[in-house]
Amino acid sequence: MHEAAWIDRYIAPLVTAPGAEGLRDDVAVLSTSGATIATMDTIVAGVHFLPRDPLDTVGQKLVRVNASDILAKGAEPAEGLLSIAWPGERSEADFAALMTGIARDLEEFGVALVGGDLVSTEGPLTLTMTLTGLCINSRPVRRSGGAAGNILLINGEIGWGGAGLRAAQAGEPADIAQRYRVPRISSLFAAQIVADLATASMDVSDGLLIDASRLAEASGCGLEIDLGAVPLANPTEDISDILRQCTAGDDYRILVSAAADKALPGFTAIGHLTANSGIRLIHQEQLVNPPSTLGFEH
Amino acid sequence: MHEAAWIDRYIAPLVTAPGAEGLRDDVAVLSTSGATIATMDTIVAGVHFLPRDPLDTVGQKLVRVNASDILAKGAEPAEGLLSIAWPGERSEADFAALMTGIARDLEEFGVALVGGDLVSTEGPLTLTMTLTGLCINSRPVRRSGGAAGNILLINGEIGWGGAGLRAAQAGEPADIAQRYRVPRISSLFAAQIVADLATASMDVSDGLLIDASRLAEASGCGLEIDLGAVPLANPTEDISDILRQCTAGDDYRILVSAAADKALPGFTAIGHLTANSGIRLIHQEQLVNPPSTLGFEH
Repeated sequence: MHEAAWIDRYIAPLVTAPGAEGLRDDVAVLSTSGATIATMDTIVAGVHFLPRDPLDTVGQKLVRVNASDILAKGAEPAEGLLSIAWPGERSEADFAALMTGIARDLEEFGVALVGGDLVSTEGPLTLTMTLTGLCINSRPVRRSGGAAGNILLINGEIGWGGAGLRAAQAGEPADIAQRYRVPRISSLFAAQIVADLATASMDVSDGLLIDASRLAEASGCGLEIDLGAVPLANPTEDISDILRQCTAGDDYRILVSAAADKALPGFTAIGHLTANSGIRLIHQEQLVNPPSTLGFEH
Repeated sequence: MHEAAWIDRYIAPLVTAPGAEGLRDDVAVLSTSGATIATMDTIVAGVHFLPRDPLDTVGQKLVRVNASDILAKGAEPAEGLLSIAWPGERSEADFAALMTGIARDLEEFGVALVGGDLVSTEGPLTLTMTLTGLCINSRPVRRSGGAAGNILLINGEIGWGGAGLRAAQAGEPADIAQRYRVPRISSLFAAQIVADLATASMDVSDGLLIDASRLAEASGCGLEIDLGAVPLANPTEDISDILRQCTAGDDYRILVSAAADKALPGFTAIGHLTANSGIRLIHQEQLVNPPSTLGFEH
């Protein structure tokens, strides 16, 4: 790896924010108009993506898992710092592919790259991004703002992450595998709705049931979910298949709570927060026993 | 690795800033009074530290390499995000030791931990920190602000990083090895002097000669250094030994340029910036040929 040359060739062209000084300095000046939030996510080959995934898709995934966190808080992605721990045996063509994917999604989500680090490693490719966001309103929408009686809503379908992983492992179909490699995340339009109407919000990354339980718990509530109301990647009436889709990870949809009289464009109501703690699942007006594992527990 | 339990046990206790919401949310609110800067550094076992280095020292090193960047810009370390890619075969006791070192230096340098990520890896321990800083004056002191005729100054001695690495590899002496494992970095007092008096500034991490050349180049200048004036870990009149110390990395001292009539408490003048480009080395009023390698080139 030729760090300086690769930075000049692949990373510096992405860096246009004035605060970055073209990466010629040691630090970046952050833009901080209004409330500024930050998230940091790391993805490791063999853990968070498949070692043979095309590297442009890995770069897109890195940006998306971070941008999804920011959007789910009712904020606009702003500035990124990028750290790459690069295995010495990988080629410059691989590095160029990675950066092509990163560049594509920096542009897609309006992120200004302002700094970072590039180091070598004897281990697997390890990518970390720190992403800031500018809150659309005066503060981020937390997990903890829900109240008993609030409805729970989700934008988009649940289960594509799990279906995509199986397809990627099997080698086909390619369009489904792509849903795992490059998850579809929410838009700035959804972030605006979150900022204006949600009482609590988070992105669903570890599975709908576990993440909904986390939002409820952070809000000091329990929850009831109508499994028949959850928009699924593969619609079905089979309970075990529904539960499988609702406990798979990597969906990156936004889950919110909101006052019961609100309508949120693009969101589907799937249940509500309750005064009693714990999770209650319903399907066709019958109680369903929660599965032993609600999602991906780290 | 039990991610949630380890976060609760070792990381959450370090998190007290209100913007972090006790790590119970997905993002952190950054403090952004005045100009806010950010840096991000990654250290990898076998590359940036020795695999058998005690993990509390590795944690300290992670904080210090980042804090040094912030202090050298005339700013005060503020808020950190921490990513740990943890090898599955390492023990919880190892993790506790790492966090002890991180906690020690978060406190030492006044850093509030506000977020981050913890993931597993099949590879070497890989640590990334993003650190923000609040500028003491209205903006960071860049590498690029120097001018021909400015004096070059350094605080503290050069060569401890290299001497410490050799001692750590040899297994002794322990006090010298510690200078590699836990580099002594600058104080907030030095950052204040940088903010008030330096025209350009950076920390010396890759070797004095290469970093001084980078500062000069960023400022559109050349430079002259009097090798006899450089404070050395091992003072000597032997030119090859002086050059060895001035091209070793991991010193983390602050190198600045300043107007020729300024005195900077705690800093030693070692040369000046020139209108002609390139590097000119002097020792006892004789010209010295620059070594073929000025420092650690990434």
